Amino acid sequence: MQISLIGIGSGDPQQLTGEAVAALSAADYILMPVKSGERRELSHLREIICARFAPGARILAFDMPERDPLIADYRARVEAWHDEINRRWLAALDQVPEGAGVACLVWGDPALYDSTLRIAGRARQSRAFSLRVLPGIMSLQSLTAAHRITLNELTEPFLVTTGRHLREQGWPAGISTLVVMLDGENSFMSLPAEGVTIWWGAYLGMEGELLDHGALALAGPRILQSRAQARAARGWIMDIYILRR
Amino acid sequence: MQISLIGIGSGDPQQLTGEAVAALSAADYILMPVKSGERRELSHLREIICARFAPGARILAFDMPERDPLIADYRARVEAWHDEINRRWLAALDQVPEGAGVACLVWGDPALYDSTLRIAGRARQSRAFSLRVLPGIMSLQSLTAAHRITLNELTEPFLVTTGRHLREQGWPAGISTLVVMLDGENSFMSLPAEGVTIWWGAYLGMEGELLDHGALALAGPRILQSRAQARAARGWIMDIYILRR
Ligand SMILES: C[S@@+](CC[C@H](N)C(=O)[O-])C[C@H]1O[C@@H](n2cnc3c(N)ncnc32)[C@H](O)[C@@H]1O
Ligand SMILES: C[S@@+](CC[C@H](N)C(=O)[O-])C[C@H]1O[C@@H](n2cnc3c(N)ncnc32)[C@H](O)[C@@H]1O
Repeated sequence: MQISLIGIGSGDPQQLTGEAVAALSAADYILMPVKSGERRELSHLREIICARFAPGARILAFDMPERDPLIADYRARVEAWHDEINRRWLAALDQVPEGAGVACLVWGDPALYDSTLRIAGRARQSRAFSLRVLPGIMSLQSLTAAHRITLNELTEPFLVTTGRHLREQGWPAGISTLVVMLDGENSFMSLPAEGVTIWWGAYLGMEGELLDHGALALAGPRILQSRAQARAARGWIMDIYILRR
Repeated sequence: MQISLIGIGSGDPQQLTGEAVAALSAADYILMPVKSGERRELSHLREIICARFAPGARILAFDMPERDPLIADYRARVEAWHDEINRRWLAALDQVPEGAGVACLVWGDPALYDSTLRIAGRARQSRAFSLRVLPGIMSLQSLTAAHRITLNELTEPFLVTTGRHLREQGWPAGISTLVVMLDGENSFMSLPAEGVTIWWGAYLGMEGELLDHGALALAGPRILQSRAQARAARGWIMDIYILRR
């Protein structure tokens, strides 16, 4: 058995790479987590991609479990969640004959804030398979492309971080550019805005893409409002931003 | 006139995205920097991509200038170099009729340690054109995919930096993962190796791809040797690594 983790880009099926398309069309099975609620729209995009690029593959759907709110410790909660996803993977993989190829579609790139590689590592402890990873366009690349900006200033470093980290640790010394993901809390409003520029994007590559940028002092409150409106209208939001000073 | 900066991935033409292929096949002209010496092999890859995906486009080749070693200040040297590239862009664009589409192939992603976006910004000051950016798979994604690792540890940030920065500034406090690019100097050897793991890759996605990883204390000297051997044999090397502690 071979399992391929395929980065599918972050919204637009046109972002799939040639090797991703080839891997999908060669797949016998597709391991498909089904998410409920707000994530429904994202599952739909996977279904479109499968229908277009892997019409012959058999779908192995499984319900994505929720994290257990009763486990207080964050790491322990995530570990238990990964264990549960792994159990569902193994149950699905039991239906796959020896020698078959299984594909798993991963939002953006499997390397970036995604648990699929960790699940595959767990599954390998109890099943024999070869594992292949195909990179995909990450949301931060959709953001820089939409704004036509670079990640780095001339030879300077940049930090990729989360909303929570930014809130808890503040702006790290000596770094002029931050890429902030997974921010449900408007963490950009927790910073002194002086001298900071923000480039923001939501639903990148998807219908209803939103973009804004400017001095944080002015653009920050505007983005706060766009986020609230978009979330209310659509039921969910996925957004990302770059801060530079 | 429309100019499209097209990320072409970092070595394997199969990494091109669907939208990159579509933009190439729609291009009337291709703005093509021709590099001398060690970079010849990389220019060759661009030619292959053009022949395969943009067979009808006219190539606007120009010699890539060198940086002027007589300008002592680093920033001033780079600014003068960008000015010179811009002059060559403008001369090439003079051959392009109103309304035509021009493509420019960018290694990896235009957002990452690349000057094309800055040149396009300069060119826009003296020519009218619309500008479009298409993301491409970056070398750091080829690295994580080849090693089947993630960029971040669970919800942790990571820093993307250069060999020179690492040497001059050391390991920044509070960050467990560094992605190091543009390192001609074996900067990983300048760090205390204790507790550090390295994942290294050279010529990723290309013929002769090299991979190594392990505890820095053991893998570091091994990589030092591989780099020297590869550089001697091939005349040039392009490599990247991740350090984690
Ligand atoms: C669990 S992470 C997955 C990241 C993904 N693996 C990637 O490569 O981009 C989800 C976060 O990615 C960002 N994101 C993903 N897709 C996005 C999109 N289409 N528009 C804006 N942000 C997006 C948001 O910051 C979101 O909170
Ligand atoms: C001028 S930067 C361009 C980066 C490019 N825009 C990208 O998105 O990866 C060149 C650096 O990228 C890295 N790099 C690019 N292609 C590579 C490859 N095929 N294998 C290893 N490293 C590569 C090396 O660190 C090299 O010094």
